[in-house]
Amino acid sequence: MTIVDAREPVRLRESEIFAAHIGGKLSTGCALPLDTSENLSVAYTPGVAAVSRAIAEDPSLAARYTWASRLVAIVTNGSAVLGLGDVGPAAALPVMEGKAALFKHFAGLNAIPLVLDSSDVDEMVDVLMRLRPSFGAVCLEDVAAPLCFELEQRLRAALDCPVLHDDQHGTAVAVLAGLRGACTLLGRRIDTSRIVVLGAGAAGSATADLLLAAGVHDVTVLDSRGILFDGCGGLNPVKAALAARTNPRGLRGGAAVALRDADAVIGLCAATVPDSLIATMAPDPIVFALSSPVPEVDPGLAARYAAVVGTGGSDHPNQIINTLASPGIFRGVLDAGVRFITTEMKLAAADAIASIVEDSITADRIVPHPLDPRLAPAVARAVVRAAGRV
Amino acid sequence: MTIVDAREPVRLRESEIFAAHIGGKLSTGCALPLDTSENLSVAYTPGVAAVSRAIAEDPSLAARYTWASRLVAIVTNGSAVLGLGDVGPAAALPVMEGKAALFKHFAGLNAIPLVLDSSDVDEMVDVLMRLRPSFGAVCLEDVAAPLCFELEQRLRAALDCPVLHDDQHGTAVAVLAGLRGACTLLGRRIDTSRIVVLGAGAAGSATADLLLAAGVHDVTVLDSRGILFDGCGGLNPVKAALAARTNPRGLRGGAAVALRDADAVIGLCAATVPDSLIATMAPDPIVFALSSPVPEVDPGLAARYAAVVGTGGSDHPNQIINTLASPGIFRGVLDAGVRFITTEMKLAAADAIASIVEDSITADRIVPHPLDPRLAPAVARAVVRAAGRV
Repeated sequence: MTIVDAREPVRLRESEIFAAHIGGKLSTGCALPLDTSENLSVAYTPGVAAVSRAIAEDPSLAARYTWASRLVAIVTNGSAVLGLGDVGPAAALPVMEGKAALFKHFAGLNAIPLVLDSSDVDEMVDVLMRLRPSFGAVCLEDVAAPLCFELEQRLRAALDCPVLHDDQHGTAVAVLAGLRGACTLLGRRIDTSRIVVLGAGAAGSATADLLLAAGVHDVTVLDSRGILFDGCGGLNPVKAALAARTNPRGLRGGAAVALRDADAVIGLCAATVPDSLIATMAPDPIVFALSSPVPEVDPGLAARYAAVVGTGGSDHPNQIINTLASPGIFRGVLDAGVRFITTEMKLAAADAIASIVEDSITADRIVPHPLDPRLAPAVARAVVRAAGRV
Repeated sequence: MTIVDAREPVRLRESEIFAAHIGGKLSTGCALPLDTSENLSVAYTPGVAAVSRAIAEDPSLAARYTWASRLVAIVTNGSAVLGLGDVGPAAALPVMEGKAALFKHFAGLNAIPLVLDSSDVDEMVDVLMRLRPSFGAVCLEDVAAPLCFELEQRLRAALDCPVLHDDQHGTAVAVLAGLRGACTLLGRRIDTSRIVVLGAGAAGSATADLLLAAGVHDVTVLDSRGILFDGCGGLNPVKAALAARTNPRGLRGGAAVALRDADAVIGLCAATVPDSLIATMAPDPIVFALSSPVPEVDPGLAARYAAVVGTGGSDHPNQIINTLASPGIFRGVLDAGVRFITTEMKLAAADAIASIVEDSITADRIVPHPLDPRLAPAVARAVVRAAGRV
């Protein structure tokens, strides 16, 4: 089997992917030399005792003299890994190693995967509370909804450090950045756009919330049973609250009802949308089909009707993924030394991502490439500014 | 304040030690390049999905395709850090970072510190059980006795990976190696030697046990109240069991009784022994005063009577510390792919350490220098052999 990358004519053979993963992708290293007795006496005993004693007397010094305060714990229980579903903690590890590597590469942050063999919120919160002095921030990844909502909320309350569920907020920031780019390109206002979000899971609900926070008035969210509307019943508390905040025109029905005359659709659901429904949207619509590896609608077919198409894959232009956002967000919040990642920071991060391509925007480039070296520093600066620390 | 290294004329200034610790000592890195879309597609999405899917289908593949199976978790709650005592998890972190760095430098193993804010055995076991898929072995460090005994025992039962409390067994192996070296130098037999262990904590009790396993018949252990003897009462279960296994001559009293005519004394207690008591030992005794930074007896004074003197510090010859043993032991047991670190492996590790200096032994060199590059590979090979895997 080969995986085709259409933009760069590269074929990834599975054998090469597996060969690259032998022994894992991450490694640890020491910033100090250990090759002489003197070096050993500085990095380890007896020299290190002076540092430990100082921290014992003034715990605030741990931030300065250990790696923990700049270390991101990449935490999952493997319950919603990529498009694979609940594969569990061990199978999630290659993805978490990759994410940890991205944090280092893009944002200069150390990161370690902590994969948890648990589906119990109390248990997971307890583990991270006990481990709290070991790290400086928690990036939740690939935790299934609705568990992820309670887990993030509980951790934000329990841990005195930044906590962010990347699949919710990293994705939401990337989507908002993409919509800002598309609106700039098309000369539209985002706040008066009708926007449909397909999916009411982790990514869908956080995206809807961030769009509302960005001033969008008309957001309609669908789950697998159709449009969420206030009082529609049979919803879990997260979806019920989402239904109450969205769908101002009280639409009822399925994707056909939601998409008719919509300005933008954001696919975050792994379901399929026929291109015939894209044809019913408002003129020159924006279509983000972000499920990976299989988008909700074929990007080529969508492009027959849409002015802008984005996907979650690297095999099409406009790759809209949380990797655009989260390394810079964590770098910024750790640089700022604040505990909470706020809505203001997320809005600022989206603006920062969009502003990188603002002057050179095309339909094939509404967001920067994930490898753009300006990305994480720009996002980090915006987050520091939003934190009021500059 | 300066810390003097007498062997190498080096003064460590505290200001230099603190400067070296800014930002911590450890870092993470990625073994794969991330500079092109293709590289990103291999290390992260979409390529990584193939690896996760394979592990989900066959969990044994996690050992091959993640870093976890070769990753040592350096675990502590900071309850007995170096000579500092119960400084807690945050203050223990610089020491754990140093230990993690040593594992990489000496044995080529990745290692991460996990410092636990807990003194409850159930809680600590539970945290590590939940984290189990994240690592391949657990090295307990600087956990106070008697908590450390139950914790190690419970973790060995609960986790299907190697677990070792370094302050117990790493120290015991180093001491046995040192005694073997000293006996080689002096032409003595270890099994018929009278050996006194000062201290019945983590290091003292494990050392006494390993000496018994090595065939030593006459081991006498003292705690802060004196010689342990069978039925002496007022002892915790670990000490009571130790009393029953040791002191075959039924000695009662303090250090003066124990040291009279003894062939070797192993200080692992942070208490002080007057050199006048060393004078009462058998001719040409072996004195290991291993507490750091202050040895139980001044090495210079001890040398007036002793044929061989060892300490725990780098400021004297014969530095007898767990660092001689544990990196190679973990490398060996992970190379062998076995779950338990057995007594046979510990005995083999001690022999391997001793054999490195066997042909060039002097009173100032009964063990290899901790920086000797032959050390960890030799110990690892011995452990693999003892595991029956070669």
